[in-house]
Amino acid sequence: MDEKVSTISTPIAGYRPQLTRLVCLLLLVYFALSSLWAGHPSEPRRPSFSYLADHCTSSISPIGTEEFLTRQKELAITLHNLNGSAAYVTEPSANGLFFANVSTVEWRLSERPLLLIITPKLEDGEIHPKLSVLAPRFEATRAKLLPIPFAQPNEIEWIEWPEEASPYELAVAALGEQKDGGIVFVDSATRYFVVDGLQKALPQAKVVAAPVEIKQLRERKSKGELEIMKCAHETTLLSIREVHKRLYIGMRESEAREMIATALADAGLSNGGCLTLFGDNAALPHGSGSDRTLGQSDFALFDCTGNLLGYQSDVTRTVALPDSKIPSGHLFIWERVQAAQLRAHDAARAGTATAIVDEVARSYLQRYGYEKYFTHRLGHGIGIEGHESPYLVGGSKDIIKTGHTFSNEPGVYIEGKVGVRLEDCFYIDEKGNAVLLTEGVGGTAKSALKP
Amino acid sequence: MDEKVSTISTPIAGYRPQLTRLVCLLLLVYFALSSLWAGHPSEPRRPSFSYLADHCTSSISPIGTEEFLTRQKELAITLHNLNGSAAYVTEPSANGLFFANVSTVEWRLSERPLLLIITPKLEDGEIHPKLSVLAPRFEATRAKLLPIPFAQPNEIEWIEWPEEASPYELAVAALGEQKDGGIVFVDSATRYFVVDGLQKALPQAKVVAAPVEIKQLRERKSKGELEIMKCAHETTLLSIREVHKRLYIGMRESEAREMIATALADAGLSNGGCLTLFGDNAALPHGSGSDRTLGQSDFALFDCTGNLLGYQSDVTRTVALPDSKIPSGHLFIWERVQAAQLRAHDAARAGTATAIVDEVARSYLQRYGYEKYFTHRLGHGIGIEGHESPYLVGGSKDIIKTGHTFSNEPGVYIEGKVGVRLEDCFYIDEKGNAVLLTEGVGGTAKSALKP
Repeated sequence: MDEKVSTISTPIAGYRPQLTRLVCLLLLVYFALSSLWAGHPSEPRRPSFSYLADHCTSSISPIGTEEFLTRQKELAITLHNLNGSAAYVTEPSANGLFFANVSTVEWRLSERPLLLIITPKLEDGEIHPKLSVLAPRFEATRAKLLPIPFAQPNEIEWIEWPEEASPYELAVAALGEQKDGGIVFVDSATRYFVVDGLQKALPQAKVVAAPVEIKQLRERKSKGELEIMKCAHETTLLSIREVHKRLYIGMRESEAREMIATALADAGLSNGGCLTLFGDNAALPHGSGSDRTLGQSDFALFDCTGNLLGYQSDVTRTVALPDSKIPSGHLFIWERVQAAQLRAHDAARAGTATAIVDEVARSYLQRYGYEKYFTHRLGHGIGIEGHESPYLVGGSKDIIKTGHTFSNEPGVYIEGKVGVRLEDCFYIDEKGNAVLLTEGVGGTAKSALKP
Repeated sequence: MDEKVSTISTPIAGYRPQLTRLVCLLLLVYFALSSLWAGHPSEPRRPSFSYLADHCTSSISPIGTEEFLTRQKELAITLHNLNGSAAYVTEPSANGLFFANVSTVEWRLSERPLLLIITPKLEDGEIHPKLSVLAPRFEATRAKLLPIPFAQPNEIEWIEWPEEASPYELAVAALGEQKDGGIVFVDSATRYFVVDGLQKALPQAKVVAAPVEIKQLRERKSKGELEIMKCAHETTLLSIREVHKRLYIGMRESEAREMIATALADAGLSNGGCLTLFGDNAALPHGSGSDRTLGQSDFALFDCTGNLLGYQSDVTRTVALPDSKIPSGHLFIWERVQAAQLRAHDAARAGTATAIVDEVARSYLQRYGYEKYFTHRLGHGIGIEGHESPYLVGGSKDIIKTGHTFSNEPGVYIEGKVGVRLEDCFYIDEKGNAVLLTEGVGGTAKSALKP
């Protein structure tokens, strides 16, 4: 570089100073412009929604060791109370995360099983949990780095299975005295070869899916969990509202989808994103393949999820813009969906069957002939998983209990025409009432213009 | 911008021409340099390995409809021959991909089961497969877009389950006459709640894991599958050899890892990548967390996988460079691992127990006191899954058959010192002999300098 510069500045400089200056200035302008261009390549400036992070995400605490130990203890007591049950077994999973802080993020499932085994033991007249971890010996060093909570460092029993051994036969050792003739409960998401292996290693015992008493330990949320879930849902709804202000007629679904993903990320949620569907695309509940433009007569539907400290959010809004011209028939549908959602919310109470709540929304929509356009269940449980038991669905025999959390998401989908869905999640408080997880930011949509 | 330029060129230009030129030239140099910098931000130029794609990947055919129909027919015949077996059931999975071209890539698993059900039916004295697909009604439109192969468009029986129904009770309808008292075989990777649901809907039948007769349909590869697998493995090995030529002392693991991922992608493999471990990092078979530099006395270990048309490759090389100074003790280990690998290869034959092959490699290393450093099984089956049954492992009762494919990967890992693994995959040909999948490019490593 040095050589080139001196070539330009010495011999030509004295010769034609005006021309040199002109060439030099033109080049300067060229480089200055291209430098600016390189700084802003082709895309408009990314909007920032970082102010949303101030709402709550930074002040929320993750689930602590104490709560994990309480969950294990409650599981042990439940096992003890379920006459003759020897153990609860799960792979890394949502239940693995709940009881022992190990999901498939921390430990990827392979053909070599890693099992989390909790057995009840009686000590000083009290039931305590014993946590055993069955791990491939070959990977034991890595397994011992798993963030499993414990009260004392030596409280976890490690069972390492060598490659040539049956992991299931070694697992049996952890099951204590009740294994012969007892019951071993497994997480129902466990892969069948693991269940089969355990059953064959325990011919005298019954290996069965965990019953409702165990499932409810995770289904019914603690105060700490509800605090996280409230924050996740409030932040998700605030993100939708902020993006709603920036929508415009003529916008593409992809642009809106990207904008709301940015908002959710800036707000502090991980893996956030929304089904973003304009006009008749929203009539396909899980989306279409096209990238539609928002027309003046179109609703925009956002079905948004995000994760905060291991807990999922799920909020859907169907919105219009101040300069939209929504057909009155579509606004009528919007209002019917809103009313169905409110009626279902009011019907949800501790002691009520989940199927009844679905039926309340469904029969209301039926009055207007919309029941055939309401093609899915009313709602799902939500927590560590985006969809988890129990479900608000016809045919279910589940009963609502305090601490349960549900989505409430009626919808009307008329293919080729319009799709409307409104989704708000609620929990059942200690008095047995349904309370919106977004109550802190005003809760449900008031109109298509006020999400 | 225009205004600024004219300000510089007019009043100051006539005043101090030499100074203006100097400032102008300095700015010019600055912008020129920053423009160059922006064009090549911080990274060296990415090498291209696109010539590797010419080797075979572009001339290989994907599995066609005919082969899928043959698989289904063989499954139906196998079910018929297994006395009283009513059906085979799988979720989207590796077996779902094998029999019906539906893996979890095509259909993500959710709490709503989608099941592929194959039942044998007798027509004109011949056994034919009947393929039924149980899908959530709510998602049936999307399900019907799945790329399931069929001979006649109307040959697939679609069973749509509405949200309020039990999918398992509807699935039972597909099982034909043998369902009462018969046997339903399930893919062993199925989630337990699906197996449990089927069993409860079929109290008179037995729902059990598919036996070896069914498992072998996928384990034993066809000619078409072997052609794909040969190409995948040859390309993987060629990629390692090309990257080996570009390694240098002082290089970081991360740089080499990126380079070989580039080579595998350029060569036409998808999702390609390598465990890339230098020196004593290679003593941890599944890797460490550090980003080590390649020292003069270090081996470099590459354990590489990639995917071609749905089939996995798996090749490991432990290499040195021409200017390496590997301790003679480490070279001695390399040669013992090489010899163990060759002996195991020679021992693998149709009719031999898989456990024997593991034992051959293990007992050879034992002669040198290395058995305690060979911490994992000798090998695994390979095909649609990177690791699949059967396994070359102690304690297994599996017998090698023609068409079986295995990795053969002895290793010696001395923590804090050295790790050596050599891995080549082979298949069992029609005569019952083991043949390397990389035979077309010279097969196994000849020395640490000749991978």
